[in-house]
Amino acid sequence: MEITASYTDLYQLTMAQVYFKTKPNGTAVFDYYFRSNPFEGGYAVFAGLENILEILENFTFSPSDIDYLKHHNFEPSFLDYLKGFQFRGTISSCKEGDVVFPNRPILQVEANIIEAQIVETVLLNLLNFQTLIATKASRIRYSAMDKVLLDMGLRRAHATGGYYATRAAIIGGFNSTSNVKAAKDFKVSCSGTMAHSYIQSYEDELEAFRDFAKIRPKQCVLLVDTYNTLKSGLPNAIIVAKEMEVRGERLMGVRLDSGDLAYLAKKARVMLDDADLKYVKIVASNQLDEFVINSLKEQKAPIDIFGVGTNLVTGKPDASLGGVYKLSELNGEPRIKLSENIIKTTLPFKKQVYRMLDESGMFYGADAIALASEEKPTKMVHPFDQTKSLALDRFQQEPLLEKVMERGQRLFVEKSVAEIAQYSKSRLAQLPTEFKRFQNPHIYKVGLSPKLKEERDKLIDTHTR
Amino acid sequence: MEITASYTDLYQLTMAQVYFKTKPNGTAVFDYYFRSNPFEGGYAVFAGLENILEILENFTFSPSDIDYLKHHNFEPSFLDYLKGFQFRGTISSCKEGDVVFPNRPILQVEANIIEAQIVETVLLNLLNFQTLIATKASRIRYSAMDKVLLDMGLRRAHATGGYYATRAAIIGGFNSTSNVKAAKDFKVSCSGTMAHSYIQSYEDELEAFRDFAKIRPKQCVLLVDTYNTLKSGLPNAIIVAKEMEVRGERLMGVRLDSGDLAYLAKKARVMLDDADLKYVKIVASNQLDEFVINSLKEQKAPIDIFGVGTNLVTGKPDASLGGVYKLSELNGEPRIKLSENIIKTTLPFKKQVYRMLDESGMFYGADAIALASEEKPTKMVHPFDQTKSLALDRFQQEPLLEKVMERGQRLFVEKSVAEIAQYSKSRLAQLPTEFKRFQNPHIYKVGLSPKLKEERDKLIDTHTR
Repeated sequence: MEITASYTDLYQLTMAQVYFKTKPNGTAVFDYYFRSNPFEGGYAVFAGLENILEILENFTFSPSDIDYLKHHNFEPSFLDYLKGFQFRGTISSCKEGDVVFPNRPILQVEANIIEAQIVETVLLNLLNFQTLIATKASRIRYSAMDKVLLDMGLRRAHATGGYYATRAAIIGGFNSTSNVKAAKDFKVSCSGTMAHSYIQSYEDELEAFRDFAKIRPKQCVLLVDTYNTLKSGLPNAIIVAKEMEVRGERLMGVRLDSGDLAYLAKKARVMLDDADLKYVKIVASNQLDEFVINSLKEQKAPIDIFGVGTNLVTGKPDASLGGVYKLSELNGEPRIKLSENIIKTTLPFKKQVYRMLDESGMFYGADAIALASEEKPTKMVHPFDQTKSLALDRFQQEPLLEKVMERGQRLFVEKSVAEIAQYSKSRLAQLPTEFKRFQNPHIYKVGLSPKLKEERDKLIDTHTR
Repeated sequence: MEITASYTDLYQLTMAQVYFKTKPNGTAVFDYYFRSNPFEGGYAVFAGLENILEILENFTFSPSDIDYLKHHNFEPSFLDYLKGFQFRGTISSCKEGDVVFPNRPILQVEANIIEAQIVETVLLNLLNFQTLIATKASRIRYSAMDKVLLDMGLRRAHATGGYYATRAAIIGGFNSTSNVKAAKDFKVSCSGTMAHSYIQSYEDELEAFRDFAKIRPKQCVLLVDTYNTLKSGLPNAIIVAKEMEVRGERLMGVRLDSGDLAYLAKKARVMLDDADLKYVKIVASNQLDEFVINSLKEQKAPIDIFGVGTNLVTGKPDASLGGVYKLSELNGEPRIKLSENIIKTTLPFKKQVYRMLDESGMFYGADAIALASEEKPTKMVHPFDQTKSLALDRFQQEPLLEKVMERGQRLFVEKSVAEIAQYSKSRLAQLPTEFKRFQNPHIYKVGLSPKLKEERDKLIDTHTR
């Protein structure tokens, strides 16, 4: 399946036809943001931007897309417009890999309203998912500390979504993936061990290990739980490791994939050490996530490498990030959506977001949203509670939204996944640990400039009068 | 991203290289099955087969795949083999759309062991996900009874996995999708309404409705909750509906997307009926799933069309189906994998599965697994509890696994998604309601022929002696 401009919801096109007839030259600003952090955590890691820029540079309707739409009540003049459709808008965005927080723009699209509307679906689809998975990966990284993390999730991923899951996992802090195509295309490390079926294909586990070690001695990891981990798998792995030593080779590791991983890892470590195989690493897998890894670390399980699959690539238990794309300005005029749920009321106008840094360069824990037309704000106020405000004079302020696409053309060279991952790591290092803990994380403040709040409140009044 | 043979886990290739050197002519049988029903339900709907057959007919390594693998410690002779790689195996499978149950083969691959191993990942990736979503869709269909169901999930789907989510949703019983590309490629109905941004793009809600109704009068559905559903959205929709009547047109519906849907739907129905607009349908959306729809039905909310997004396309709360692919035979010899968890012990040999039908053609609630080499079994026994068995003489027995691919070529013309959905509907109709209820569904029996149990037990003995 190739991503063309028919990768959208039908209603984007029905709305687009109305814009085409009534306001073909309207210029709209849309904000992308989410309303609460995934996983009940204290932050999210923004991912997917580079894919979006690449897709939008070439987002056109194929001839077969146009043929298809002919049968869906669209007018010939509008279909002619779609034939020449191109996204020629401007995008301002946080950097991919940055840590981001709820209810503040992460990305802004400024474009002809028809174009801005048609790209909504693909933008939400790729940013929501990759941000979810990069955040999950960063949490697993936080629990695993400096241990090696492998993505093994492709078989449990949501079909081809697994390709993007791998990309996001690396951005969030994973070291390597089993997914060959993703590793190749995104230029990230690829790794793998062996499956139970391989062992079963032999009458004898020892022979299976021997053949594997002979044919693929480099980065050889033996799976030891097919029959009995401690009585069969490990003793056989130790025999093969010793045989490898005679050939001047080294067994890289053994993999535990079932049973009590803490107990088995401790036993395995002792057996390996007793055989003078201190260099053989212990790899563990089987329904791991940040909480299981935390527990294994607490139990001092001597595991060197964690393989994570399902819980990583499906972003369990959330499985989705509810990012939205809301109109905030049209032809220079502010736009708002009200809601019975006050937190869902949108923010009008084009905006900038400023991050507060303390004297040591760490994030203080506050992002201020201001009108794009204002200077850096000296104060931020709570969006709804007028008793709460924060003076901003004492902080170094970093503007977060930068122009990354202009008239449909990207402004910077594409960043590699490795670069984005490196940036993400540096940004997570600036975020104090209170925001990273899993239980009741500290709440990062997101406030408005007094001017933005005033404009929003005026607009609410207009619509509720 | 194009699916070529590098859409696999690296370990498939490292194992394949060992097979290539040690048993290049081995013939293996692998079983695809899952161990427990998704959503704590009583069944699953099998989906994804046609995609797999199409992919496997053309599953080759691209030149760039081979180049990439050159840098991963593979031997030149094996890389040459991969250059000419093709899947030439035989596949026996349940029909796509059938209802299936845990711990019995759904699909069997019989192929050269190298080929069978390399295709594992893509097969699990597509079957696990689509079976999960088709099952979820069938549950939502069960709760919605004869109402219309629309898939609106693309923006919250796992990137391009959303394309396959739509396909599976239709198989499981949805009527239509908002996903243009999926609707086009899978030849299913496409539909859509309007977004809040469209309403916001006007100063005035009434004008927004008017323009839409004029430009797109067919299947016009107005979104009524942007400002105030009962005070603004519905009164304005009624004005426009009356104006449409003057033009000889009919408003199709109004959409509720927030607030108390039961309360608002009842109020809306009264307002519409009082205005002589009984034909105007009520569409509801906002975080729906089978349980919310059940509750709305119980409250007699007069909703005609349900739009379902996130919970459908992400298969919440499960988010994954743990289907596995296990070696059961090699060169005619049985293969087994043991586990401390007895339920995870695999079944050896090539097998057939028989479904028991009662005199009225309904499913009795029992599938029997037998050796492929046996006749239809006259009795089935519990896999582990020797006190439990069932005589099968009185049933009509339907063999479920049929050959669908031979030497890498599919045997039947590709079935359309609509045909598969129709078949699934007929199979679900044969499944008694006790297996379909959400709370503690009746447990469908899966048993073994006495011969298969005997062979399995012999093999367990061999490996634990």
